[in-house]
Amino acid sequence: MTPSPQPLGGLRIVEGASFVAGPSAGLALAQLGADVIRVDPPGGGSDFLRWPLSSTGDSLFWAGLNKGKRSVTIDHRTEQGRELLLALATAPGRGAGIFLDNMVGRHRLTYDELRARREDVIHVHLQGRSDGSPAVDYTINAEVGVPQMTGPQGVEQPVNHVLPAWDLLSGMVVASGILAALLHREREGQGAQLELALADVALAGVGNMGWLAEAEMRGGPRVRQGNHMYGSFGVDFETSDGRRLMVVALTEGQWRALRDVTETGAVFAALEQALGADLSQEGDRYRLRETIAAVLRPWFAQRDFGTVRELLERAKVLWSPYLDMAEAARAARADETSVAAEMDQPGIGPLLATGRPLRWAGTGAPPVPAPRLGEHTEGVLSDLLGLTSEEIGRLQDAGVVRVSGDGSQQSRRPSSPELPPGAPRQRGLPARA
Amino acid sequence: MTPSPQPLGGLRIVEGASFVAGPSAGLALAQLGADVIRVDPPGGGSDFLRWPLSSTGDSLFWAGLNKGKRSVTIDHRTEQGRELLLALATAPGRGAGIFLDNMVGRHRLTYDELRARREDVIHVHLQGRSDGSPAVDYTINAEVGVPQMTGPQGVEQPVNHVLPAWDLLSGMVVASGILAALLHREREGQGAQLELALADVALAGVGNMGWLAEAEMRGGPRVRQGNHMYGSFGVDFETSDGRRLMVVALTEGQWRALRDVTETGAVFAALEQALGADLSQEGDRYRLRETIAAVLRPWFAQRDFGTVRELLERAKVLWSPYLDMAEAARAARADETSVAAEMDQPGIGPLLATGRPLRWAGTGAPPVPAPRLGEHTEGVLSDLLGLTSEEIGRLQDAGVVRVSGDGSQQSRRPSSPELPPGAPRQRGLPARA
Repeated sequence: MTPSPQPLGGLRIVEGASFVAGPSAGLALAQLGADVIRVDPPGGGSDFLRWPLSSTGDSLFWAGLNKGKRSVTIDHRTEQGRELLLALATAPGRGAGIFLDNMVGRHRLTYDELRARREDVIHVHLQGRSDGSPAVDYTINAEVGVPQMTGPQGVEQPVNHVLPAWDLLSGMVVASGILAALLHREREGQGAQLELALADVALAGVGNMGWLAEAEMRGGPRVRQGNHMYGSFGVDFETSDGRRLMVVALTEGQWRALRDVTETGAVFAALEQALGADLSQEGDRYRLRETIAAVLRPWFAQRDFGTVRELLERAKVLWSPYLDMAEAARAARADETSVAAEMDQPGIGPLLATGRPLRWAGTGAPPVPAPRLGEHTEGVLSDLLGLTSEEIGRLQDAGVVRVSGDGSQQSRRPSSPELPPGAPRQRGLPARA
Repeated sequence: MTPSPQPLGGLRIVEGASFVAGPSAGLALAQLGADVIRVDPPGGGSDFLRWPLSSTGDSLFWAGLNKGKRSVTIDHRTEQGRELLLALATAPGRGAGIFLDNMVGRHRLTYDELRARREDVIHVHLQGRSDGSPAVDYTINAEVGVPQMTGPQGVEQPVNHVLPAWDLLSGMVVASGILAALLHREREGQGAQLELALADVALAGVGNMGWLAEAEMRGGPRVRQGNHMYGSFGVDFETSDGRRLMVVALTEGQWRALRDVTETGAVFAALEQALGADLSQEGDRYRLRETIAAVLRPWFAQRDFGTVRELLERAKVLWSPYLDMAEAARAARADETSVAAEMDQPGIGPLLATGRPLRWAGTGAPPVPAPRLGEHTEGVLSDLLGLTSEEIGRLQDAGVVRVSGDGSQQSRRPSSPELPPGAPRQRGLPARA
């Protein structure tokens, strides 16, 4: 494989963030070649032992979201620690002077004090709500109507989805905001003060798809549709051997492919006639979704998964098998072109990690291990701030920084009993089996 | 309000995309001040009537995702149309020469032919899978294990979430990729060929949170937990008047706040003793989630929503009410600082639309109407390519472009019968009621 281009080589971002959104912004930039320095208090931030944990008791979550970054531990609550952080965030360099902060309701460092040190600093403040009050993905999602639309038909209560989608999305909004600010700085010489609230990302997300306007025009929320896709035809089917698949006919061509492979053309022509419908139109496919699904269901129920797969592939139907997370991991291992690959994570061991999905000049970027907590404290303070070993030693003695030892398992809680240590990996599931 | 900065003023992106991911990339860039020219075939792309529809039969989805762009209609399947598109995508300008394409399995225009016209062109090809085979959010999500983890406990079948999270996320990955490529071009003078597959974004998304590695170590998928948050404590509760809320105790401080306001400290201290647990640890809160929820539930069930809200707010508990989409719209209208605001969308009328969530120097960007389809064909061909009215007229006669008429309601399907025309808007719900 040709080495992946590092288009953001020369950039340096100081990341004072935790959990998903902030760290995933830094991850995306690191995967494009930026030097991302994650700063945590000695002992780790509040996400340092966030689940899922490995059988060694380390956080697979933390390891996944901090791949390819440098880790520095500084206690920003001390006067000296604040000073170090301020110096790091405003250190010279054309691609430096970028600070990401996700303290809730207040700042580790304010824009004004950063700017006093470096006029063109770029400061991003990420938080739950724009008024400074706390909120997380799990609370925000409840407020934007999604759990009332998710889940099986007939369920009365809200159904949370497990994916922290607003966190992931906010992370990429932050990454694009930093890049926009850098581009602006390259062109105009000015810094920028950016702020982003998860709550605003979520409301804009549902608003951009027209969901807010729809609810107002409808005079109430859209009703829950189970696994049916909204506004066109798409739903899950079960094969004779109990496998489930998601089948979608979003466009007219996809609808024709599905109808033809299931040899239901005459049935649907008669139905269109009887019901005054035109199933080439997505709206009519949606209105008649239950009827369409009922007509198609026996075709799937009469065939095993292998047969269904072969016929759907040949007919170019748009579909996917449902895979559980372990099956998804196996499929990824069986696929040489996958964005996931085995990687040796220091402190944990070999694990399946994911690289950069964006391909640049034909290549992605393979996963790179996360640092041990505090691994780069000494190097960063020495290289970027010119501190001597003695100065760093004194800071360590004063509890301001910690240069090593944070990566040890001491004082950790035992790992989840749900995780058997050394459970064997299963391999070899074909990519779409 | 001070006018919002336009940090990407001077940029021009030609967007040949449809549905969510590609258009949401263009939307994010347009909301930062870029000139985004969406190119569709005459009559509209395959998402032109995507649901939700307004009571006028227009797509609220299309209007939401194309806010603030220019719209040009060119039939790229004709020789002359391809030539026009090529010329637009490679037109001169320091911030121009950027083309986003999401044709499945092939290209509207290849990188090589674009580059032959403009050496430093930036080309992004967005598709379902990296091998060119089609996939959409709804099929991809089935393959990455999420529907097996979503939904009420006890449900056996996969539960799709309704939010096209991978689409939204892919859009922001594209936006950040374009900005990274522009920054790289500013600094190095080189263009870039970028490719992104939804399937890779989804796999990287679950991988980055450690979910793939966890499933392998566990030897199987994580089991479904209903509305419980994974790895810490968070679940929904019902008040005496039937309102539901999501309550989260992710950090130790949040746990203390919840325990104290519900006056359950002694109960949990006794439980910790009896069960050998330490509820200040998120792992123990997760393991004992059912017990914790059962202890707390009566407190919520004995109080009405107003009382619960007041007590939780005062105690700084992390929580949100569940709002359905209509309630979310009302709350947004009642909140003067909301990213959502009423906007007059030509062809549809006043509706609740959303602006830019990212605040720059203290201000967001209010929503700007979407164009009528083809509204800017004549202006763009004239201004950017120097075509005369006569030349444009000949192209229109040949069916290559259409300068007007696409915005009319003729030949449209009737709007959804589920949408009562002119349903009154309800206002005045307090922001967090």
